[in-house]
Amino acid sequence: MISYTVELGRRSYPIHIGAGLLERRDLLAPHIAGRALVVCAEPLAELYLARACAALGDVEHRSLVLPDGEGVKTLDTVNTVFDCLLEHRFDRHSTLVALGGGVVGDITGFAAACYQRGVPFVQIPTTLLAQVDSSVGGKTGVNHPLGKNMIGAFHQPACVLADVSTLETLAPREFRSGLAEVIKYGLIADGEFFAWLESNTDALLARDEQALVYAIARSCAIKAEIVAGDEREQGRRAILNYGHTFGHAIETETGYGTWAHGEAVAAGMCMAAALSHRLGWLDETGHARVLDLVARCDLPVAPPQISAERFLEHMSRDKKARGGRIVLVLLRGIGAASVTSDYPRATLTDLLEQQQPAASAS
Amino acid sequence: MISYTVELGRRSYPIHIGAGLLERRDLLAPHIAGRALVVCAEPLAELYLARACAALGDVEHRSLVLPDGEGVKTLDTVNTVFDCLLEHRFDRHSTLVALGGGVVGDITGFAAACYQRGVPFVQIPTTLLAQVDSSVGGKTGVNHPLGKNMIGAFHQPACVLADVSTLETLAPREFRSGLAEVIKYGLIADGEFFAWLESNTDALLARDEQALVYAIARSCAIKAEIVAGDEREQGRRAILNYGHTFGHAIETETGYGTWAHGEAVAAGMCMAAALSHRLGWLDETGHARVLDLVARCDLPVAPPQISAERFLEHMSRDKKARGGRIVLVLLRGIGAASVTSDYPRATLTDLLEQQQPAASAS
Repeated sequence: MISYTVELGRRSYPIHIGAGLLERRDLLAPHIAGRALVVCAEPLAELYLARACAALGDVEHRSLVLPDGEGVKTLDTVNTVFDCLLEHRFDRHSTLVALGGGVVGDITGFAAACYQRGVPFVQIPTTLLAQVDSSVGGKTGVNHPLGKNMIGAFHQPACVLADVSTLETLAPREFRSGLAEVIKYGLIADGEFFAWLESNTDALLARDEQALVYAIARSCAIKAEIVAGDEREQGRRAILNYGHTFGHAIETETGYGTWAHGEAVAAGMCMAAALSHRLGWLDETGHARVLDLVARCDLPVAPPQISAERFLEHMSRDKKARGGRIVLVLLRGIGAASVTSDYPRATLTDLLEQQQPAASAS
Repeated sequence: MISYTVELGRRSYPIHIGAGLLERRDLLAPHIAGRALVVCAEPLAELYLARACAALGDVEHRSLVLPDGEGVKTLDTVNTVFDCLLEHRFDRHSTLVALGGGVVGDITGFAAACYQRGVPFVQIPTTLLAQVDSSVGGKTGVNHPLGKNMIGAFHQPACVLADVSTLETLAPREFRSGLAEVIKYGLIADGEFFAWLESNTDALLARDEQALVYAIARSCAIKAEIVAGDEREQGRRAILNYGHTFGHAIETETGYGTWAHGEAVAAGMCMAAALSHRLGWLDETGHARVLDLVARCDLPVAPPQISAERFLEHMSRDKKARGGRIVLVLLRGIGAASVTSDYPRATLTDLLEQQQPAASAS
């Protein structure tokens, strides 16, 4: 097991990464204040709910099983969590436990942020994507028909337990989708880690536990370091959105869930690398390495057929847009990203017009 | 005009109290980041919306008019604010302006807390209750069918403009309801202010501007002082709930809106004073002074007919309840409140059983 502390002053919390952590009562129970409500997505309930409840030991608890999928990430679902909490008279000395992927984590974290103006929550992410991304950083929230993650709160967990054993049952497509974010961390902040990923792609794709623990721990550490320096996303934290402005446009245009988040981000990372290359910020070798690693992970290197116009429309609606200018995260080399809106708009438009659509993502 | 700064470090903000502040472009415009959305309750739109928009000067803005009443304080209404923001492409560099009473302030503040994980907001409270209570302290939120203010966030405004000129048009019952909270501040923290209120009741009831500015400023200062010492409501801040645990039970039992919030709090304050007296913590004179001032303001000194059992049921569901014990704010004298769950349950039950219902509140 590797443990890492996200340093946020009074709101600091530990992340534990290892195999079999779901059995560890000593890791979970100490972080529960009062009673616990375990929120879990449907397909996982059968696999892990009983184990998570057992790890709660003597803590009084209930569980709530939500339907699966990005489609449930709505304000209405958050309200069903409130219904459950109030029906069972949970007071403000209660702790929510999110057991599942990013969707359950985002919903549960947001419910915890708002229930009686804030109760603690613990994350037990069971997907690779959630383990390396959604469970670190305190971002919680839900979608709105007009935009992804438009409603939410910053609310830090009391603890994160990333049990790599839960990744064994993950569907291949979902596993690869998580790898996209792992690749992102290397690209934006750690060239050595990117090289390690190039050398260990096969072990990761084979879900070797040791390789996974290292890759997840390194990803969390990179994210935690960036988040700790910029908790409320005023500056540098924005580099975590590498590939995401393009990616969100793909997800919005195709309808949430058609492309997996990580697939959209993978294509977005390749587009951002291509733009960085066109601007002369990333050399040809760097550009090729990005596309190569993404392709080896069986992730899309290009977006589906979307007109430049539609792309720009979605991108200008992005949270990071400022007064019409599209802010992008671009590469200055492998392991070095920067946030900018200072690039010729025509270079972006040209790139969007010249995209060759990827083969179907599914 | 009296100005007061709520000291909360990075989140400190000014409260300005005076007549005609709605005309003051110099007070409002500097606190708007980006574009502004002014949210206003229906009956007020005609009276003040054009003026508030004029005070925004050159700031690009839109307005959203909500239906009136406590009944709209729901998650659904918050969602209509999100709809409006997203339809008109407000990005995260936007500011919400709450123009109206506590309901609009609570809804708008909560929407600001959650929109794109937090945008700034400014409060322009137009009721006495909102000026002395809801606009100070950063509590935002909405009701749930199973409980009042169960969903919300702590989100501090960027500025509060309390224009006493807006109180001229306030319905008498609503005005008196606000006085209940003013009395509360004297009772819990400032015996001298309570005595000032006893001497100036007639001027206040006549809505004398100078008396109002002083009473509001003193109330805000007392609340701000308490909040500054305990922003997240872990300890002393709970004394602000004096009268509220009884009051919330009255509101829940009779249905929100049947009793005005201040009326329920007034009866609750008298009940808490009676309990303090029975416990030997408040002398007979003190108890009589509470009832006398409440009665002179034409506010109820007793609850409606509610069984002790129902009272206890509602009170044990209160946010302040801890593991079944009902935490109450009681008086140790005029101007000195303390939070306790250390009292004989039988004394509370006896009191609840012996209440004489007040004449109808309406």
